Amino acid sequence: MRLARFRDADGTVHRGELSDDDSELTADGETYDAASVEFLPPSDPSKIVCVGLNYADHAEEQDADLPDRPMLFLKGPNTVAAHEETVTLPSGKERIDHEAEFAVVMGERAKGVSADEAMEYVEGYTCLNDLSNRDDQNIEQNWVRGKAFDQAAPFGPVVATPDEVPEDARVSLRVNGETRQDSSRDQFIFSVEELVEEITTYVTLEPGDVISTGTPAGVAPLEDGDTVEVEVEGIGTLRNDVRIP
Amino acid sequence: MRLARFRDADGTVHRGELSDDDSELTADGETYDAASVEFLPPSDPSKIVCVGLNYADHAEEQDADLPDRPMLFLKGPNTVAAHEETVTLPSGKERIDHEAEFAVVMGERAKGVSADEAMEYVEGYTCLNDLSNRDDQNIEQNWVRGKAFDQAAPFGPVVATPDEVPEDARVSLRVNGETRQDSSRDQFIFSVEELVEEITTYVTLEPGDVISTGTPAGVAPLEDGDTVEVEVEGIGTLRNDVRIP
Repeated sequence: MRLARFRDADGTVHRGELSDDDSELTADGETYDAASVEFLPPSDPSKIVCVGLNYADHAEEQDADLPDRPMLFLKGPNTVAAHEETVTLPSGKERIDHEAEFAVVMGERAKGVSADEAMEYVEGYTCLNDLSNRDDQNIEQNWVRGKAFDQAAPFGPVVATPDEVPEDARVSLRVNGETRQDSSRDQFIFSVEELVEEITTYVTLEPGDVISTGTPAGVAPLEDGDTVEVEVEGIGTLRNDVRIP
Repeated sequence: MRLARFRDADGTVHRGELSDDDSELTADGETYDAASVEFLPPSDPSKIVCVGLNYADHAEEQDADLPDRPMLFLKGPNTVAAHEETVTLPSGKERIDHEAEFAVVMGERAKGVSADEAMEYVEGYTCLNDLSNRDDQNIEQNWVRGKAFDQAAPFGPVVATPDEVPEDARVSLRVNGETRQDSSRDQFIFSVEELVEEITTYVTLEPGDVISTGTPAGVAPLEDGDTVEVEVEGIGTLRNDVRIP
């Protein structure tokens, strides 16, 4: 099942199922044309815990050693943006990059959860674009200006239950229709289960909280007016237009 | 005025004024013995934006150059703890330190706010203990395990309106009654107004969000069973017992 949250033409908010061809939403016994609704973020995270280097191909490309534990960073609720929401990036920067990510949405409060039981706490998966202001990221100890600016984490369009998403799901990104990132979940250095265990050793995750699992090779700069699409096999396509004032 | 949130013996939550001698709370026309209530965090932050090195005396002690802009990091809502709440620290670490901080509680949503108008968006000030797991902080790029573990940011007991707090307010910390940190707000490198401007250039602050303004000299390790008190002149004393399992 692939569940979206959306606002209909009358302003009512629903949670409902997106059809296989992405054309229709079914909620509360009614069917809605997906083109006529406003998509909302599929959950309301109290925090987004992001993972650094987590793709073997990306590590190889960067000639980086494989990390012995996940590199973590935080994005606050101010970074949330929805599918089809226009994202306004910080102005006056030399380089702001896209980063296609496979993301996990928590279904239950989780603290001290082992990898073996991790999936009992996961609602499903979504697409996330970890927008990154490199000008500041490169000179900050902690990536606040670099990664936690407003709208820096568009995610959606749905939460897909884990059964919808293959173990080797393709994770790709297009800018204005041109593919820039193209990898697969089987390149993960740390699995979803291992990430849940490591994070919840320190941090309680709440229902709706998001873990974003890192980006594959191919990150590149965005320009004013670009349309960015993050696609994960079995989940769908997250699409955002980008403005740089 | 110094405003606390608390739960009375019947379980009802109030917001009310703490008396000058900290003995009584007045809320909804009733008076409560402060010793008989459960203090709650004085706001519900969606995020806590913390500032690194911000005291000239601490920078001098560390032989550090004065930063040309504030070093920022994030704590999520999982780090919140209340006055008089027992804090359980991560186990198996060599060193977890206290950090006494003067903190700002936002009253209005703020984005792109200049220093000149910053105080219009501030509700008041509180005490915060920026608990820091040095084992992990010293080896992480972003301080998630190091600074954003559960209960890593006790704050309170009140929000004091700015008129209660002198410009050179003393900021001090005691462990088991012994003074470990003792400085003053006039040592700030970046003022509250400058911090609001810099942060809101990138990040929208919501009502209840907290800016913690950095710690002075004298940070030191905590041990199981310690009682830590952060005192800021004009605000009051935040007290927490610490457990290390």
